[in-house]
Amino acid sequence: MATKRFASEDPDVDLLYKQLAEHDLQPLWELHGLLTPQPRTRAVPFAWKSDVLLQLAGRAGELIPVDRGGDRRVLSCANPGLDGQPYAVGTLWAAVQYLGAGEQAPAHRHTPAALRFVLAGRGVWTVVDGDPIPMEAGDLVLTPSWTFHEHHNSGDAPMMWLDVLDLPMVAALDAVFFEEGESETVTVSTPDSSRSERLHGGGPGLVPVGVEPPAGRSPLLAYRWADTERALVRRLDAGARYAHVRFSDPASGRDVMPTMRCEMLRVPAGVAVPEHRQTGARVGCVLHGTARAEIGGRSFALSEGDIVAIPSWAPLRLTAEADLDLFVTSDAPVLAALGLYREQQS
Amino acid sequence: MATKRFASEDPDVDLLYKQLAEHDLQPLWELHGLLTPQPRTRAVPFAWKSDVLLQLAGRAGELIPVDRGGDRRVLSCANPGLDGQPYAVGTLWAAVQYLGAGEQAPAHRHTPAALRFVLAGRGVWTVVDGDPIPMEAGDLVLTPSWTFHEHHNSGDAPMMWLDVLDLPMVAALDAVFFEEGESETVTVSTPDSSRSERLHGGGPGLVPVGVEPPAGRSPLLAYRWADTERALVRRLDAGARYAHVRFSDPASGRDVMPTMRCEMLRVPAGVAVPEHRQTGARVGCVLHGTARAEIGGRSFALSEGDIVAIPSWAPLRLTAEADLDLFVTSDAPVLAALGLYREQQS
Amino acid sequence: MATKRFASEDPDVDLLYKQLAEHDLQPLWELHGLLTPQPRTRAVPFAWKSDVLLQLAGRAGELIPVDRGGDRRVLSCANPGLDGQPYAVGTLWAAVQYLGAGEQAPAHRHTPAALRFVLAGRGVWTVVDGDPIPMEAGDLVLTPSWTFHEHHNSGDAPMMWLDVLDLPMVAALDAVFFEEGESETVTVSTPDSSRSERLHGGGPGLVPVGVEPPAGRSPLLAYRWADTERALVRRLDAGARYAHVRFSDPASGRDVMPTMRCEMLRVPAGVAVPEHRQTGARVGCVLHGTARAEIGGRSFALSEGDIVAIPSWAPLRLTAEADLDLFVTSDAPVLAALGLYREQQS
Amino acid sequence: MATKRFASEDPDVDLLYKQLAEHDLQPLWELHGLLTPQPRTRAVPFAWKSDVLLQLAGRAGELIPVDRGGDRRVLSCANPGLDGQPYAVGTLWAAVQYLGAGEQAPAHRHTPAALRFVLAGRGVWTVVDGDPIPMEAGDLVLTPSWTFHEHHNSGDAPMMWLDVLDLPMVAALDAVFFEEGESETVTVSTPDSSRSERLHGGGPGLVPVGVEPPAGRSPLLAYRWADTERALVRRLDAGARYAHVRFSDPASGRDVMPTMRCEMLRVPAGVAVPEHRQTGARVGCVLHGTARAEIGGRSFALSEGDIVAIPSWAPLRLTAEADLDLFVTSDAPVLAALGLYREQQS
Repeated sequence: MATKRFASEDPDVDLLYKQLAEHDLQPLWELHGLLTPQPRTRAVPFAWKSDVLLQLAGRAGELIPVDRGGDRRVLSCANPGLDGQPYAVGTLWAAVQYLGAGEQAPAHRHTPAALRFVLAGRGVWTVVDGDPIPMEAGDLVLTPSWTFHEHHNSGDAPMMWLDVLDLPMVAALDAVFFEEGESETVTVSTPDSSRSERLHGGGPGLVPVGVEPPAGRSPLLAYRWADTERALVRRLDAGARYAHVRFSDPASGRDVMPTMRCEMLRVPAGVAVPEHRQTGARVGCVLHGTARAEIGGRSFALSEGDIVAIPSWAPLRLTAEADLDLFVTSDAPVLAALGLYREQQS
Repeated sequence: MATKRFASEDPDVDLLYKQLAEHDLQPLWELHGLLTPQPRTRAVPFAWKSDVLLQLAGRAGELIPVDRGGDRRVLSCANPGLDGQPYAVGTLWAAVQYLGAGEQAPAHRHTPAALRFVLAGRGVWTVVDGDPIPMEAGDLVLTPSWTFHEHHNSGDAPMMWLDVLDLPMVAALDAVFFEEGESETVTVSTPDSSRSERLHGGGPGLVPVGVEPPAGRSPLLAYRWADTERALVRRLDAGARYAHVRFSDPASGRDVMPTMRCEMLRVPAGVAVPEHRQTGARVGCVLHGTARAEIGGRSFALSEGDIVAIPSWAPLRLTAEADLDLFVTSDAPVLAALGLYREQQS
Repeated sequence: MATKRFASEDPDVDLLYKQLAEHDLQPLWELHGLLTPQPRTRAVPFAWKSDVLLQLAGRAGELIPVDRGGDRRVLSCANPGLDGQPYAVGTLWAAVQYLGAGEQAPAHRHTPAALRFVLAGRGVWTVVDGDPIPMEAGDLVLTPSWTFHEHHNSGDAPMMWLDVLDLPMVAALDAVFFEEGESETVTVSTPDSSRSERLHGGGPGLVPVGVEPPAGRSPLLAYRWADTERALVRRLDAGARYAHVRFSDPASGRDVMPTMRCEMLRVPAGVAVPEHRQTGARVGCVLHGTARAEIGGRSFALSEGDIVAIPSWAPLRLTAEADLDLFVTSDAPVLAALGLYREQQS
Repeated sequence: MATKRFASEDPDVDLLYKQLAEHDLQPLWELHGLLTPQPRTRAVPFAWKSDVLLQLAGRAGELIPVDRGGDRRVLSCANPGLDGQPYAVGTLWAAVQYLGAGEQAPAHRHTPAALRFVLAGRGVWTVVDGDPIPMEAGDLVLTPSWTFHEHHNSGDAPMMWLDVLDLPMVAALDAVFFEEGESETVTVSTPDSSRSERLHGGGPGLVPVGVEPPAGRSPLLAYRWADTERALVRRLDAGARYAHVRFSDPASGRDVMPTMRCEMLRVPAGVAVPEHRQTGARVGCVLHGTARAEIGGRSFALSEGDIVAIPSWAPLRLTAEADLDLFVTSDAPVLAALGLYREQQS
């Protein structure tokens, strides 16, 4: 039990402070910085570079068997502002996961929700509640809260992808549950389209009759790059200077999962997205292109495969240098559900 | 003012009945058939045959200019049970609209919502609130309540399609408003994709950021046959004996309009859809194939282009003879919103 | 089967019309008045006077046993514009129900929903799904769609109240179901508070834990005059010129039933409610006071117990002569759910 | 910047760990305790006793002026498991606030939402966005997110009440905003009913017409003990062994604020509430009576004015010794909105 000590120049007040401490009470008037005019985040703007991620993940692939602790070969981004916590920003875990040819990460489930965004390669199936989902570059794959999931690399080359979880938030809410599962068999002959897609991925606005979607999260577990790119192209065709689309639950139009929003930005070379900030934390990942990102007074040169942390309320100004495709995930649905979402255009 | 007369064998009661009538009152105990054990519809099961529709619509095209009354060259299906009312079933108007090469049906708007389902041909643009939407076989095009709309045949052949409106329901609610509009110019060089599709038709679960969808109805105004067919194929690939998909508002997952549900059935030759009934009226239209439909004790041989009326609570048993694609629209969202939706599988 | 005949001066067109009729089709361009600039209601503004209602209901009490057909002794208001249909307005049934001392109206249920508004007296219990609800002047009692209900007069005097049902609307939707039930026993010693009130009527914003409310309609079946009057008084205390409150489902804030809105107006003597109109039909009933009502160009002197029909879109201007309490019910939730609700302040 | 160091017995792995640390990455397989089978809370079950709170708050009243830092004279409950953080449980701040006769706590607003629950006394007005709300024993008063609020003791005795805020959660989401405001004048002649109550507190299910409620939170800012007690009495009258009611937004039936659920339990002497646990943290406060509380293996004797911390997933077994009225607040709406709410009855 840690006891915080407060001090004063008045012996009566000092005695009061001592008595408060003895009874697990604290004087509000000595607590500073609780209520700040604007969010004061511990997490700082930061970027993890693709070449480092690739090199160290590859090295881990050589040295660390996949089943050594945690069942996953994952390098987690640790924001330097967070005092050693393995979190990219205050509410989101971001990491790269590396799976060698023929390797398998065993089945489990947990209440923290996860998403996988594939930067390159193919050959891995993620199995979600028994439904094998092949993963390829540009795809977004969901493993929602409390769904069993496992990863199989049935290809002949290692593969690496971005993992983002709402783990810090679920941990802060003291709601983490975890359970191991029975693994499935997946082979190269497994169909290249998941059951989830066959049911719920037919087309814009087309939903299956007689299939009750799960409550609160998307029944569609894979969003394919070909579809995403078509949506981006159409958005630009409709006259936008840059394209900005949101991945949604086709059964409700809401965010794909209750804790995480997923978006994709396509910014043509030379175009700047106006400075903007919002409450809640974001993690970005460059799929294609290069950009300059000014985040809360710091400047980052971003290129393919880089992961970037955008803390709450930090202004973001993004200028594409080569045609940019940027995947962004955030805790925005949580802020919105709790009435705490704000945004500001500069 | 009509006065209903009730009679009895008791002169005191007769006097009472006379006094009630004089004061615009009626004795409930003499009113029979108000509360029936099950729905007793005036509309009967019925089918309008494609060859008749084509022949008479073509003849109307020769004889009747498009702007003669109502601004539309439309033949409305008049259910024989409805005493001369021009309605296909109790709550829905169904009709074929015929537009010759180079003809134009001028702009107007009304609170009754409409949908257009194209059975064959191409060359017509329907302009909805300034957005030109080309129409081709198999497409579903919406002109929601109070949106301006007009039709232009910029092609070199006549074109005909199915119109369904919720007019009887909106009329029963005494909520019909109508207004003429200013017509737009559409040419053959008008893009073959509407603004609505470029914004909202990117792909399953992909929604544009920064575009506020209209309240209560789909922002996507055209559902293309290629997408619909892909959804049907995937549904069959997922193991269903027949495919049944619903057109939905991609921003909410709800029905495309608050008063009309739209669905498509693909039934392989030889397959029978189990007998089923539901509250609320339906109108079907055969896009492809042939079928036997047993509806409330009557039997119909359906082929391409036929329109069929399925009254509330009438059991429907459908058996495909040649591979069947059947478009079905209904007032189901109204029944559901009012707590009156029931269905029963035999 | 009625066939509508259209005529023209052109023999070719006449032949076409004849062929259309033979095939149950109608030419839209000959159908006039389908789409009107504004709602054109058949129902007219009208009032049924209390003294007539009392006298004729009393006479019916002498002459007609309660179980003679329909299980109810009810005089229904027949709007003179509706060609003999027993409806007060296009979508609502309004009537007075009269039950003598010791009489009982047996149990049944139907999909049309009903409400009871008590103008005077006490001594009757309405039993809803087994829950006995005593009725007194000023109370609103609900018998929602498909709930069993029956009325018992355990008092020693006849009692009369207003019944309003959504029957015309449910009939137009071909969704009427009806079933007889087993009657309960109610005595003068039955508690004077229903189970529904003990669970859901605790106070503003207080809901029971562990009691799942029914879907789509209020779990609270009785709204007591004492509570309603307190809300009216507070509203005037808060500075309003007249008080206007809506009865709502305490579990959702929505209307008490999906098809009917219930409201109460308190207008101090001499105060005029500004002219206003809305889509959808309304029925009013004077609980206390007198007023002048101008409705769609007609003028009515209203006093206690009068029932008044306000058709869709008819402007209503109400001026209280003596302090007025007016109960109003309408189909507004239906119009709102279907995107057809409009209102206009003059 | 803190760097976490991982060690291994393999120099190659050690080198990898060193390189990871240099690049702000961490090896998941060395991170233990992230995903636990069940929630493992840092906060422990705990109780703060009324006599201590009263004595130390009174002493603070003598020694500390109200405007010294934080604008409030507040003693915050610091859960001994939380390493000196001033929070009662992981997501909730709980405290007692003490205001002497004639004192005033100045106006401010902040995004963390607060509630006040009064254990004894009267004489204080809390002004919320300009609406003065008198506070008395048993009352629940809300100061929702971003509403200006201030406290005035216009009485002649000091007064103390429970404050609960969602501050830890809003801080974890990096969404704290704060602003000072202009104070109002309140006197003993200020009406004893708030505008909020005159508009929204009329009675169960009675809502004002023409008053748009705020989005996402209750428009009713005070829940009076007389109403709450009536609801508890009715619940017991309806046959429950103990009464359990939830305070709700009368305009929506949802929780009073998006981040905090408020409930009241009345447990007759000798009755035990069955053991139960739920995800999310709770804070209880005894209004009347005494009880034995078994919480996660610890046992507490509770009496009037005690505050108790119930961590996430800790089983709670409550046995009333003298008739108990227990106020409970929790973060349950957050857990529910995010799909993380679970409960378990033993």
